[in-house]
Amino acid sequence: MKAYIHDDFLLPNSVARELYHGHAEGRPIIDYHCHLSPKDLADNRRFANLTEIWLEGDHYKWRAMRANGEPEALCSGKGAPYEKFLAFARTVPQTLRNPLHHWTHIELARYFGIAGLLDEKSAPAVWDSANAQLASEGMDSWGILKKFNVRMIGTTDDPTDDLAHHARLAKSACPAKVTPSYRPDKAFALGDIAAWNAWTDRLEAASGLTCGRLTDFLAALDSRIDHFIAHGCVVTDHGLFNCPEHIAGESEAAAIFAAARAGQAINAVQSEAFAGHVLAFLGERYADKGLVMQLHLGAFRNVNTGMMQSYGPDAGCDSIGDYHQGPGLVKILGELSARGKLPKTILYNLNPADNYLFACMCGNFFKEGQPGWMQYGSGWWFLDQMDGMRAQIDTLSRLGLLSRFVGMLTDSRSMMSYCRHEYFRRILCNMLGDDVEKGLVPPDMTALGTMVENICHRNAEAYFGL
Amino acid sequence: MKAYIHDDFLLPNSVARELYHGHAEGRPIIDYHCHLSPKDLADNRRFANLTEIWLEGDHYKWRAMRANGEPEALCSGKGAPYEKFLAFARTVPQTLRNPLHHWTHIELARYFGIAGLLDEKSAPAVWDSANAQLASEGMDSWGILKKFNVRMIGTTDDPTDDLAHHARLAKSACPAKVTPSYRPDKAFALGDIAAWNAWTDRLEAASGLTCGRLTDFLAALDSRIDHFIAHGCVVTDHGLFNCPEHIAGESEAAAIFAAARAGQAINAVQSEAFAGHVLAFLGERYADKGLVMQLHLGAFRNVNTGMMQSYGPDAGCDSIGDYHQGPGLVKILGELSARGKLPKTILYNLNPADNYLFACMCGNFFKEGQPGWMQYGSGWWFLDQMDGMRAQIDTLSRLGLLSRFVGMLTDSRSMMSYCRHEYFRRILCNMLGDDVEKGLVPPDMTALGTMVENICHRNAEAYFGL
Amino acid sequence: MKAYIHDDFLLPNSVARELYHGHAEGRPIIDYHCHLSPKDLADNRRFANLTEIWLEGDHYKWRAMRANGEPEALCSGKGAPYEKFLAFARTVPQTLRNPLHHWTHIELARYFGIAGLLDEKSAPAVWDSANAQLASEGMDSWGILKKFNVRMIGTTDDPTDDLAHHARLAKSACPAKVTPSYRPDKAFALGDIAAWNAWTDRLEAASGLTCGRLTDFLAALDSRIDHFIAHGCVVTDHGLFNCPEHIAGESEAAAIFAAARAGQAINAVQSEAFAGHVLAFLGERYADKGLVMQLHLGAFRNVNTGMMQSYGPDAGCDSIGDYHQGPGLVKILGELSARGKLPKTILYNLNPADNYLFACMCGNFFKEGQPGWMQYGSGWWFLDQMDGMRAQIDTLSRLGLLSRFVGMLTDSRSMMSYCRHEYFRRILCNMLGDDVEKGLVPPDMTALGTMVENICHRNAEAYFGL
Repeated sequence: MKAYIHDDFLLPNSVARELYHGHAEGRPIIDYHCHLSPKDLADNRRFANLTEIWLEGDHYKWRAMRANGEPEALCSGKGAPYEKFLAFARTVPQTLRNPLHHWTHIELARYFGIAGLLDEKSAPAVWDSANAQLASEGMDSWGILKKFNVRMIGTTDDPTDDLAHHARLAKSACPAKVTPSYRPDKAFALGDIAAWNAWTDRLEAASGLTCGRLTDFLAALDSRIDHFIAHGCVVTDHGLFNCPEHIAGESEAAAIFAAARAGQAINAVQSEAFAGHVLAFLGERYADKGLVMQLHLGAFRNVNTGMMQSYGPDAGCDSIGDYHQGPGLVKILGELSARGKLPKTILYNLNPADNYLFACMCGNFFKEGQPGWMQYGSGWWFLDQMDGMRAQIDTLSRLGLLSRFVGMLTDSRSMMSYCRHEYFRRILCNMLGDDVEKGLVPPDMTALGTMVENICHRNAEAYFGL
Repeated sequence: MKAYIHDDFLLPNSVARELYHGHAEGRPIIDYHCHLSPKDLADNRRFANLTEIWLEGDHYKWRAMRANGEPEALCSGKGAPYEKFLAFARTVPQTLRNPLHHWTHIELARYFGIAGLLDEKSAPAVWDSANAQLASEGMDSWGILKKFNVRMIGTTDDPTDDLAHHARLAKSACPAKVTPSYRPDKAFALGDIAAWNAWTDRLEAASGLTCGRLTDFLAALDSRIDHFIAHGCVVTDHGLFNCPEHIAGESEAAAIFAAARAGQAINAVQSEAFAGHVLAFLGERYADKGLVMQLHLGAFRNVNTGMMQSYGPDAGCDSIGDYHQGPGLVKILGELSARGKLPKTILYNLNPADNYLFACMCGNFFKEGQPGWMQYGSGWWFLDQMDGMRAQIDTLSRLGLLSRFVGMLTDSRSMMSYCRHEYFRRILCNMLGDDVEKGLVPPDMTALGTMVENICHRNAEAYFGL
Repeated sequence: MKAYIHDDFLLPNSVARELYHGHAEGRPIIDYHCHLSPKDLADNRRFANLTEIWLEGDHYKWRAMRANGEPEALCSGKGAPYEKFLAFARTVPQTLRNPLHHWTHIELARYFGIAGLLDEKSAPAVWDSANAQLASEGMDSWGILKKFNVRMIGTTDDPTDDLAHHARLAKSACPAKVTPSYRPDKAFALGDIAAWNAWTDRLEAASGLTCGRLTDFLAALDSRIDHFIAHGCVVTDHGLFNCPEHIAGESEAAAIFAAARAGQAINAVQSEAFAGHVLAFLGERYADKGLVMQLHLGAFRNVNTGMMQSYGPDAGCDSIGDYHQGPGLVKILGELSARGKLPKTILYNLNPADNYLFACMCGNFFKEGQPGWMQYGSGWWFLDQMDGMRAQIDTLSRLGLLSRFVGMLTDSRSMMSYCRHEYFRRILCNMLGDDVEKGLVPPDMTALGTMVENICHRNAEAYFGL
């Protein structure tokens, strides 16, 4: 049987191969958005076995294993590491055509030089080989970052975080610059008023500011932005159903805040208007302070009530929603633009039915002298796979400027996801090679090579000011 | 001119050909959902001519003929059989690139060995040849089932049906197992209160239970499930705009029921909450009794008011809707899952913009030890064509486990649709052949062949407990 | 470097080449919907330079230039012509994979015989060459129409327009028939009651009818239809968020009209019901008078508040919306159909997520003896590019009759867009060539050639009664 993951995987013609090997392979990785643990990174965590580094917290794998009938104990549960690995190994052959099949074998190949297919039969040898290598020099967290030429990592952090791990990292020999990303979702989550108040108490503690009035609250949020910037923050993040369609005026927002802080329930209309006020405030601050605003829109969270009760959030039971996305985007981006305070913004959609809406929306906003100010983000979550990436690249191409694209990010919880940059790069080169073959773009290898390099890392380096 | 529908139609490379001819062709057909007439099947109906077997009730053909300007008398109307056939024959050349063009010529080839193209010129000879063959031995209904190796048929039946035809079939020499499917849409159609009461009266008669209170009504529905199971039922079916976003509690549902039974109008909010209550009740029963629940979501029915007035429903004037589908799915599936009573479920969407939402939703729910419990169903209705099937297969592949897919069904009203299984199988093998050629899957013919066989019939046999 | 835009651009195989060169190339252009200036056409305008003919009012180019960081003065602003051209020229290399890259180089090649790539370096020579040619005989407006074999142009005009330019054109030597299209959007724009009253005053002046009551208003609208028809009008146009889901009865509509005419604010519900009444009235009139109704649905207009304030509408800050489109289409088309007054209708959607809904909706309505009465329109605006056109052609093919399609239109504000018909035709032939190569359609070159010719111009000629 011919090798599956080989040097020219996904590169069917000479243009694709030249672009990949000449302009993409081995280039620096700017992983500007992920969910790696700052503590693990600061600790230069070493992983005891393949399950720790590969399956821990990986809801993609859990979903496949559950669809394959594996017991929950071997997914998110308390099963023994090897049992969990075995359960995954026997699932892998069933994942043919799922991104997991590509990811699994690319990751085994690139991290451990393991070339065969993973299944129940090969599992013991893979386990032994990978674990032995994980114990070797160069396979601790920093070693992995070096191996994959990771230059920058943007973790995802709560505004109340003290960022002590990031402070440790700044003084460490970690080969990548690890920067915190400001993710203040809890600041406008008025649906659970007790949780919101508890969080606001933590915000008070972190900022040293009493949040008795809205202005104090916003000042506290603002001071945390500064704290984040002092620790290297260049990008922020928001995960929302959709952008608020209404923006409360100051007095309205202040009244809602006062009621919420007093523990009163806030209805959905008020909650949305309050979120609009806070989001517009934060957007302004980001613009003033040169931070990038990321908006991740469209997820149903924790839809499996039973799993939510027994396991809590992030169990891999989130889903693609079908909210109206247009009006909220128009409202927030229009407002910030009218105020002259539109920050650099990256829009990500979860439902591919919204691809054109999102990419098109980016084209309505811009900043003179700043190419690529608005970004249509790389395929997110369920769209972070071959078809999703192709659709994102095509959509951006048809409606905007692919050449200005800041490119790939892992959005991952695992240290074993850096191959996704390779995967993205191969797909990009595949598409351009195909275009040249079909005569759809001029066969100018210099121009194409430059574009590939820019999308791989240079655009991101410039955009995030690295 | 080269043959159009030949042995290797849709099979461009050797892998595709080997997979199709070696693992798909001639395999048993498990047609687990269709709209064939149980009476016709029990009668072993013989068809007087091509119009009877081919055009009767076929809204796909009617829509094409209408778009081609044919008079309604020759579509759904009272035109003479040969005139109707001629109208279709002269439409066929205009259907280039429409699935009808493929279906028509595959069906003529496989049922009657007719190889040329159908048009006005060839129509007389096709008519004569097909009609002569329809009169021959082996072309009655049972002969056709045998010819196409149809093992199981799931008809679609009202809970008030006595299933006498199914009882006859069980004792007959019919080569396929013909099972009824429980489709209780009328049980929660409170929009027309008179029709609902009339139906509930029929339910009383069929069950022998007086439906004075909600609990009686549900008991009557439940007793009909048992009646269906006694006649071989393994799968149920629901056709809904979208799943209810609200589930009435017991007392609320009881009050709505009482009002409805008293002939009072029920508003849309109450109607939805009542539907939620009934659907959740039924889902529980299905789970307890091992039945599969099918949800067909997203159709606008009878949108052409004029046609509805003159012809009634099922005139081929139904359309693709753009309802929100996510919240209702989350509500119902979440509720059943929280109750620990999630039945095997197949989700079908009509609007392809919802493909990702539906396939992703399946991945949130699961059952330990039961691979493929949740199914993202094959391309439905307007999506039951080459592009729709490819999109369904790709979507399922990227978000779930294609290998666990229960595969194709005809959903047809015609005995001449069994070739759609061939069509589906060729497309599946085409896609896998293409994947191998592009290096996207390992060229392991054993694994691929097994997967093809499973999707063709083995997964369905296991899923439906045949 | 191989030529980019050559004779066989987009024509990869012999079938595609034979279809294009034998059946599409050079065929008449029926540009039944565009936004060219009737005055310019009547004046046989000559363009002073490439910026005048190419960049003026072209929001596609502006959007790309803004995304590339160009200052607004060089987009929609008051920059010098050559500076604007230079800004575009330096943007072009960044538009790789955007339709602008194809359009730009096809237009330079076909209008001016300029073969190289446009960039900052080639800009001066391109500028000089193009400007010299624009000054030459045969490159005035009429010369261009002749050069591209444009037979008919449908401009877009307000009902209050006197159509004096069209009257001039009718008597002129203009080689194309230039017909006005009735676009009465302002008749039901009750959101801005002052603007609506001002427009209604203009309607009174144009029609000579006092609009004191709804019946007068409708009569005035009707009289303008006749005025348009007297000037050659064959097609109308409506740009709407979505079709009204409610149609006010006569007395309700009359009351809303009276209130509006009295300057009272009209709420959204009333406004929609009024729009429904007027749209249904107009649809009837169109049906009676043999006019085609175009519905362009789904745009967010002027979403960039800042740009709207400083520049006004049509600044290129319109976007793709995510309205519900189904219910309004069902309402209006169902109503007209029930009245027996359904005009020929072309539906255009802006959000590609609605492709299937729109194409499917067409199939629910029809007219006996009139093939292709309902049309699913060619890829509109952001969808008027390679992927959008392919998707429209595929969607129409799978759900309706491609063979009856009235084909391409430019929808353009520029005299340099006629190449878009060439672009469309190449893509159509490309797709059919691909189908033949894959065995998806019979290799009957006569049938395919006829279909191509019909889609290129004959269907449109028949549909618009030319």
